[in-house]
Amino acid sequence: MTDTSNLKMLGSQTEQPQNPDEAILETVPYSGTAEAPCVVRFTCPEFTSLCPMTGQPDFAHLVIDYVPGPKLVESKSLKLFLTSFRNHGAFHEDCTRMVGRRIAQATECRWLRIGGYWYPRGGIPIDVFWQTGPMPGDVWIPDQGVPPYRGRG
Amino acid sequence: MTDTSNLKMLGSQTEQPQNPDEAILETVPYSGTAEAPCVVRFTCPEFTSLCPMTGQPDFAHLVIDYVPGPKLVESKSLKLFLTSFRNHGAFHEDCTRMVGRRIAQATECRWLRIGGYWYPRGGIPIDVFWQTGPMPGDVWIPDQGVPPYRGRG
Amino acid sequence: MTDTSNLKMLGSQTEQPQNPDEAILETVPYSGTAEAPCVVRFTCPEFTSLCPMTGQPDFAHLVIDYVPGPKLVESKSLKLFLTSFRNHGAFHEDCTRMVGRRIAQATECRWLRIGGYWYPRGGIPIDVFWQTGPMPGDVWIPDQGVPPYRGRG
Amino acid sequence: MTDTSNLKMLGSQTEQPQNPDEAILETVPYSGTAEAPCVVRFTCPEFTSLCPMTGQPDFAHLVIDYVPGPKLVESKSLKLFLTSFRNHGAFHEDCTRMVGRRIAQATECRWLRIGGYWYPRGGIPIDVFWQTGPMPGDVWIPDQGVPPYRGRG
Amino acid sequence: MTDTSNLKMLGSQTEQPQNPDEAILETVPYSGTAEAPCVVRFTCPEFTSLCPMTGQPDFAHLVIDYVPGPKLVESKSLKLFLTSFRNHGAFHEDCTRMVGRRIAQATECRWLRIGGYWYPRGGIPIDVFWQTGPMPGDVWIPDQGVPPYRGRG
Amino acid sequence: MTDTSNLKMLGSQTEQPQNPDEAILETVPYSGTAEAPCVVRFTCPEFTSLCPMTGQPDFAHLVIDYVPGPKLVESKSLKLFLTSFRNHGAFHEDCTRMVGRRIAQATECRWLRIGGYWYPRGGIPIDVFWQTGPMPGDVWIPDQGVPPYRGRG
Amino acid sequence: MTDTSNLKMLGSQTEQPQNPDEAILETVPYSGTAEAPCVVRFTCPEFTSLCPMTGQPDFAHLVIDYVPGPKLVESKSLKLFLTSFRNHGAFHEDCTRMVGRRIAQATECRWLRIGGYWYPRGGIPIDVFWQTGPMPGDVWIPDQGVPPYRGRG
Amino acid sequence: MTDTSNLKMLGSQTEQPQNPDEAILETVPYSGTAEAPCVVRFTCPEFTSLCPMTGQPDFAHLVIDYVPGPKLVESKSLKLFLTSFRNHGAFHEDCTRMVGRRIAQATECRWLRIGGYWYPRGGIPIDVFWQTGPMPGDVWIPDQGVPPYRGRG
Amino acid sequence: MTDTSNLKMLGSQTEQPQNPDEAILETVPYSGTAEAPCVVRFTCPEFTSLCPMTGQPDFAHLVIDYVPGPKLVESKSLKLFLTSFRNHGAFHEDCTRMVGRRIAQATECRWLRIGGYWYPRGGIPIDVFWQTGPMPGDVWIPDQGVPPYRGRG
Amino acid sequence: MTDTSNLKMLGSQTEQPQNPDEAILETVPYSGTAEAPCVVRFTCPEFTSLCPMTGQPDFAHLVIDYVPGPKLVESKSLKLFLTSFRNHGAFHEDCTRMVGRRIAQATECRWLRIGGYWYPRGGIPIDVFWQTGPMPGDVWIPDQGVPPYRGRG
Ligand SMILES: [Ca+2]
Ligand SMILES: [Ca+2]
Ligand SMILES: [Ca+2]
Ligand SMILES: [Ca+2]
Ligand SMILES: [Ca+2]
Ligand SMILES: [Ca+2]
Ligand SMILES: [Ca+2]
Ligand SMILES: [Ca+2]
Ligand SMILES: [Ca+2]
Ligand SMILES: [Ca+2]
Ligand SMILES: [Ca+2]
Ligand SMILES: [Ca+2]
Ligand SMILES: [Ca+2]
Ligand SMILES: [Ca+2]
Ligand SMILES: [Ca+2]
Ligand SMILES: [Ca+2]
Repeated sequence: MTDTSNLKMLGSQTEQPQNPDEAILETVPYSGTAEAPCVVRFTCPEFTSLCPMTGQPDFAHLVIDYVPGPKLVESKSLKLFLTSFRNHGAFHEDCTRMVGRRIAQATECRWLRIGGYWYPRGGIPIDVFWQTGPMPGDVWIPDQGVPPYRGRG
Repeated sequence: MTDTSNLKMLGSQTEQPQNPDEAILETVPYSGTAEAPCVVRFTCPEFTSLCPMTGQPDFAHLVIDYVPGPKLVESKSLKLFLTSFRNHGAFHEDCTRMVGRRIAQATECRWLRIGGYWYPRGGIPIDVFWQTGPMPGDVWIPDQGVPPYRGRG
Repeated sequence: MTDTSNLKMLGSQTEQPQNPDEAILETVPYSGTAEAPCVVRFTCPEFTSLCPMTGQPDFAHLVIDYVPGPKLVESKSLKLFLTSFRNHGAFHEDCTRMVGRRIAQATECRWLRIGGYWYPRGGIPIDVFWQTGPMPGDVWIPDQGVPPYRGRG
Repeated sequence: MTDTSNLKMLGSQTEQPQNPDEAILETVPYSGTAEAPCVVRFTCPEFTSLCPMTGQPDFAHLVIDYVPGPKLVESKSLKLFLTSFRNHGAFHEDCTRMVGRRIAQATECRWLRIGGYWYPRGGIPIDVFWQTGPMPGDVWIPDQGVPPYRGRG
Repeated sequence: MTDTSNLKMLGSQTEQPQNPDEAILETVPYSGTAEAPCVVRFTCPEFTSLCPMTGQPDFAHLVIDYVPGPKLVESKSLKLFLTSFRNHGAFHEDCTRMVGRRIAQATECRWLRIGGYWYPRGGIPIDVFWQTGPMPGDVWIPDQGVPPYRGRG
Repeated sequence: MTDTSNLKMLGSQTEQPQNPDEAILETVPYSGTAEAPCVVRFTCPEFTSLCPMTGQPDFAHLVIDYVPGPKLVESKSLKLFLTSFRNHGAFHEDCTRMVGRRIAQATECRWLRIGGYWYPRGGIPIDVFWQTGPMPGDVWIPDQGVPPYRGRG
Repeated sequence: MTDTSNLKMLGSQTEQPQNPDEAILETVPYSGTAEAPCVVRFTCPEFTSLCPMTGQPDFAHLVIDYVPGPKLVESKSLKLFLTSFRNHGAFHEDCTRMVGRRIAQATECRWLRIGGYWYPRGGIPIDVFWQTGPMPGDVWIPDQGVPPYRGRG
Repeated sequence: MTDTSNLKMLGSQTEQPQNPDEAILETVPYSGTAEAPCVVRFTCPEFTSLCPMTGQPDFAHLVIDYVPGPKLVESKSLKLFLTSFRNHGAFHEDCTRMVGRRIAQATECRWLRIGGYWYPRGGIPIDVFWQTGPMPGDVWIPDQGVPPYRGRG
Repeated sequence: MTDTSNLKMLGSQTEQPQNPDEAILETVPYSGTAEAPCVVRFTCPEFTSLCPMTGQPDFAHLVIDYVPGPKLVESKSLKLFLTSFRNHGAFHEDCTRMVGRRIAQATECRWLRIGGYWYPRGGIPIDVFWQTGPMPGDVWIPDQGVPPYRGRG
Repeated sequence: MTDTSNLKMLGSQTEQPQNPDEAILETVPYSGTAEAPCVVRFTCPEFTSLCPMTGQPDFAHLVIDYVPGPKLVESKSLKLFLTSFRNHGAFHEDCTRMVGRRIAQATECRWLRIGGYWYPRGGIPIDVFWQTGPMPGDVWIPDQGVPPYRGRG
């Protein structure tokens, strides 16, 4: 049974953090450290932040893959963390890497990658692909399979 | 056999007209006027014009359906006509209707409709749907089936 | 049991007719004339004819729907008939209507429609939709559902 | 609660009937006759019969829509009935209509239609669409949505 | 602003009802009765009940469209209602109509339809389509667009 | 040429309105009132507002079709208007209708419909379909074609 | 011929086990151990368990690939085993790995992997990918190809 | 020119073999042994055999890839061989490997793999992937790309 | 600027060669030999030849990838070459390899592969995959991604 | 925070450069050089240039992947650069490589690849795939996933 004794948010009334610095990623101990490693994938189809130059909202579809070490990220705190970027200004490249880096730090995971698939602004969309290091050889990680952007017709 | 005696462009060296007013839509007599009417569909996946406000290029996927009367549009002149919008500035609504109106006038067709599926600029794409009048009751016209625009993910 | 006594081609060694005029559409009596009418759909994804102006090959995907009257078209003779257009020169509009008209005449059917979905030549494909008259009200005819042409990407 | 007292096959050891004439379509009373009518759709993606001319197996994907009257068809007997065509020789048109007619007779239904989407033999597939009469005006029947046949590429 | 004063479940700790009879569908007043009518669609991709004959679990994807009268169904109570079928035994036809009828009664809606797209058992899936009466003429209701069942390959 | 003399925002530095009441939908005269009517479709794949009960963000994909009367909506002001719902709390039904009603009022259009396709919260997504009145008989309006929600797999 | 002498469930009346601990995975000897190894894939599109924190039902689409050693898993007992999770509470990560581990133990297989594609709860779905060790080099294992989760539009 | 002098079936009247042991896989010499190797793929979307336990029909979509050595399999005899499983009882794993092994033996090919994608029985489909040995390094073999099974919705 | 001084066909009146032996593949010097290599892909969705045994037409979708050495193939002569197979009789395996071999010889390319995706004849389509040698390690060659053949439904 | 002090175009009134030589690709310093590398993908679905032989417009869908070194390309200048090919005449192979080479030079990136997916002219489309050197081993670069060209039907 997963040990949830250190969780502060689950089941309690939690406030939405107003920016990523305020947000806290909670974790639970991972019960599977003694057996073959697994991979966990989160998909966030509704991520939004602000353009640092113009203040206009930016939108992305994020897919995160990680190989847990001692801890799993707790999903309610993950959601509040992701929502906290709503009024945060950052370039696509910086924003994508920041989401990945924070989850990697909080979970002390063995490996993590993040794909940021950003909505087009002005016709040329940007995707950002980042990983903490080479993919480990002993796990199975399907590709993320997000279809490429296209125009019309 | 289709009568092609009045065609000026086919097989000859033709210059690209520089704007829609210069372009001439040639026609050939339609051999099927004595039997049940047919519908002809053209698809132009690579239409481009200019934004009248900013001079930036706009792009659209056009689909045109028409019920011929006495004349068919000749396809090489149609192509030169469509290409002539390359440096023409007009709003999406005006541009789409102008393409439809010109073909309807040149062919004296019984009925015509045009769907203009414009590439997004700034995240909100515009589609324009225009027809010369109510769809005739005695013909079969499948829907154009262009999939709706979507974002990412 | 379907009466096949008048069939000349089935099971015998048949020569490929060299053009549509040589081809003969054979028929079998339809056993269902006493009950509610049915619709029969043929799909021919590999139709080819020649351009009457340039002699280059043209290609089309044809879909034919008909409501049988006293006769069904025999499918081997249908195939030989369709293959006989291989070296026949005709415009898309004429060719599509000719296929439909010949089947309608041979079967004395109650109603027929044909969709000719032609491969692009020079970037602007042409579709031709023809029917012998208004769609009968007492039958069920799903749309042909051929996806619209698109470019690349 | 549905009255199942007249069912002979359900829960008992039933033999596969060897042809459609041997097969019996069992029914259960329909509990909804006092309220607004419903539509029931069966999909059979693996129907097979024999060609009456050559003895080769034919394959079809069948979709059946019906508006129950006093009785529902019992699904185990339906399955045995459909499987009983395995060694039955019949043309596509006859076979499709026979499946529809038998279910309509057994259930005394208000209305029925059947779409028979046959696998291609020799490159030109045949679809057969049949209904017992005009579609009733007070029910909701989505189209069957089976995608059209296509070749390669 | 929607009047939520009569809601008992929202924000409180609610127990999962153990069957549909125990479940209560709560409602909120609809603020749009004075203007043109709207249509509301719920999609439930994870409905499950039990087979009344064998006790085996059945699964369905449900889509519900309704035209509100004076009340909207409250979505948390809707979810608990749908989950309450988890250990309820009923035929597909009865189960689908019961879900629709209960929502129609609770909301006193002008019109409702439900599509029940059941997972296959034994290779032949069943869909059930039910509506409370003829579709009203003054609203816009897109088709539900659930793709047809197919086998493999 | 479209008359743009009354536009305040285009080309100038415009502030993002903080809520829908602050936002102003600008218009331009429609040049096509003397000929057959057209339909204009906007797609907004990245609409976001807040849940009025919990303050959590909600997301939707909106598709708007309208038949212009004397005025077209100017697209930059439309975008700012849509973005102004970012911190606005409203139920899905109210929010969708408000977007439609505001555009209809600003353009004095002949007819408008809006489809709001909301992301799932808690597993059961809601779609809202609203129109200002019966669809006019003399225009061509393709269906919006947004695929139905589904779960996983 | 497969040796089925030790099977207890096949053909007999078997009770549904109420939880995974009660369920027994039966096996049959694998007849192919003397030739090149094969891979067997099971797909379970309708797996359901309970959330250990809230008691709400969770749903997943599972895909399992294994390389048999001396034994094959018998498919009826596999199905009863999977259904036994219906009232079992466990986190997604634990539940997915438990299914894989139990099958690996019962079959003494050379290698196994499991993909658990969970339905979204609260907008952020979780996938879990686990394997017993590095993929063997001498077998062919296509990717599972489950499309990535996406939102709407 | 391919040497076809040893073919017995092509062009002659051939009987359908009643089981796989009766069926003979004929071959023709491969003309390309002196140049770089090629890969040949057969797709059989309509394979059917019987369940050895219940006698019920099973269905599969088979895809076979092989690298020819001195001989090519003749396609008419291949088809008769595949059809000969129609009344043959075997487990999915045995049946799939038997098809592959027989073709490999008849052609003395350098390498072969077979994917058997079986239709679901009772909700949990089985796929079987088998190859004669490690994939050769000097050929190009695209993946088979058969989409994964899924349920409804 | 590409050197086109040795081209005979471009801009002149060229006759269609009647078979592959008559056809000449012209080339132009490749300007990129001093930098990192590129890959060029041609797609020919409308290739047709004749069956050498029966004289019936065969159809294929061809995709060709090559890494240029000193020369590029000129595309008009490529098209005439491909069209010249129209009345040429050859087995699928021979025909596919002949197309590849001729282009490789004419261009003296570093590497070439060809995928021949043939339309089904008699229900079992054949694909042929051939390459001149091992794929070079320093180029990027996406897979050809042609979807697998399937039947109906 | 990204250092944007050297940007000349962002926020200022910029003229569209008339050809690629006039266009300047601006850059910003990359803030992530001290951590694991990322990959950035641009998609340009509406690239157009001119055929150097005939002056007719050519169209392509471009996808560019690069691994930043010290600099990121600024996206507004990238867009102006891509648009500057509108009246530039070049072969597909040259044009595609020129886009890639210019971005690689401007950003001094570690690695870059470009896929040019060109619209068909005369029925046989050309794709061009180019990279600056072998793909680095320490980054994650999903394939570009652009579906292959196909004809009709
Ligand atoms: Ca993959
Ligand atoms: Ca396009
Ligand atoms: Ca349609
Ligand atoms: Ca989306
Ligand atoms: Ca339809
Ligand atoms: Ca595109
Ligand atoms: Ca094709
Ligand atoms: Ca629809
Ligand atoms: Ca199939
Ligand atoms: Ca439509
Ligand atoms: Ca599923
Ligand atoms: Ca794959
Ligand atoms: Ca592949
Ligand atoms: Ca589903
Ligand atoms: Ca790929
Ligand atoms: Ca099927």
